[in-house]
Amino acid sequence: MRILVDMDEVMADAIARFIEWYERDFGIKYKEEQLMGTKLAYVVPEQHRQTVLAYPHQPGFFKDLPVIDGAREVLEQLNNRHEIYIASAAMEFKHSLYDKYEWLDEHFPFIHWKRRILCGDKSVLKADVLIDDHDFNLSVFSGRPIMFTASHNIHFTNYERINHWKEALPMFDL
Amino acid sequence: MRILVDMDEVMADAIARFIEWYERDFGIKYKEEQLMGTKLAYVVPEQHRQTVLAYPHQPGFFKDLPVIDGAREVLEQLNNRHEIYIASAAMEFKHSLYDKYEWLDEHFPFIHWKRRILCGDKSVLKADVLIDDHDFNLSVFSGRPIMFTASHNIHFTNYERINHWKEALPMFDL
Repeated sequence: MRILVDMDEVMADAIARFIEWYERDFGIKYKEEQLMGTKLAYVVPEQHRQTVLAYPHQPGFFKDLPVIDGAREVLEQLNNRHEIYIASAAMEFKHSLYDKYEWLDEHFPFIHWKRRILCGDKSVLKADVLIDDHDFNLSVFSGRPIMFTASHNIHFTNYERINHWKEALPMFDL
Repeated sequence: MRILVDMDEVMADAIARFIEWYERDFGIKYKEEQLMGTKLAYVVPEQHRQTVLAYPHQPGFFKDLPVIDGAREVLEQLNNRHEIYIASAAMEFKHSLYDKYEWLDEHFPFIHWKRRILCGDKSVLKADVLIDDHDFNLSVFSGRPIMFTASHNIHFTNYERINHWKEALPMFDL
């Protein structure tokens, strides 16, 4: 089975970086519990919104992101049985491209370069499964869409879900 | 119609860079006519082969490549009628990622980031057409494969071909 796996909020904790940089710039530390059903840019004072939205366009934003709990162990096992491809809609953020590649080399060295995709819209990808945190990626995918739970997507009810990587093994015969 | 277009030897002249760097390093300037049916690495003295094969792994190799004749004008016209996606198997060369993005911004600014794909193997892409110079990309593609003629691929006889971009417009109703 060919399974596409998104990076941010599925393998890499980019929300942690938003919170970290916001605290650096404005001295206020949000907790992820304060971001349920939304994103940091829409919780902060309105005059800070554009600054927060610009963070992922800056060099270094995607460097050294924390790994989502369980991602490495579970994806290594899934990779032994299935064709795991990493598919990140990274083209919006040109400075992310190299950092994402290096991040995969460091934390997921078992994902061969042939199985890495940095793209724009995911409607162009052909696979059996897409595991992703965003409705706008899942809704255009032609295979079986699975929503990986993140703070911003808890209100979506129309997808099969993975809430934590430990749930994924039995879903794919492991 | 969704048409995927490869970059190297289809939009960007990477062979010119191989020839340029080889002359810089070894003082001998090959002509593209000497590379028919093969590649520079297999024409140079055997003790230089590994050096030449390593060129695309070095920073700067993909920067400021010349544009293949006609590519810009024809792709701009095709892009007005069809869904043009750029699909480059760039993951083998991590230093190419940013340079390829910047190169598209400079020479093909009408290709939105949503329509840019940097990948490993092209079997994972879903589209009607793939225009590419390499058999290993065309042979795994599930749609209509079209070989873009390059010096190294002249001996392949099993593909529909585009020899020059000016031939492409009537093939796609333009």
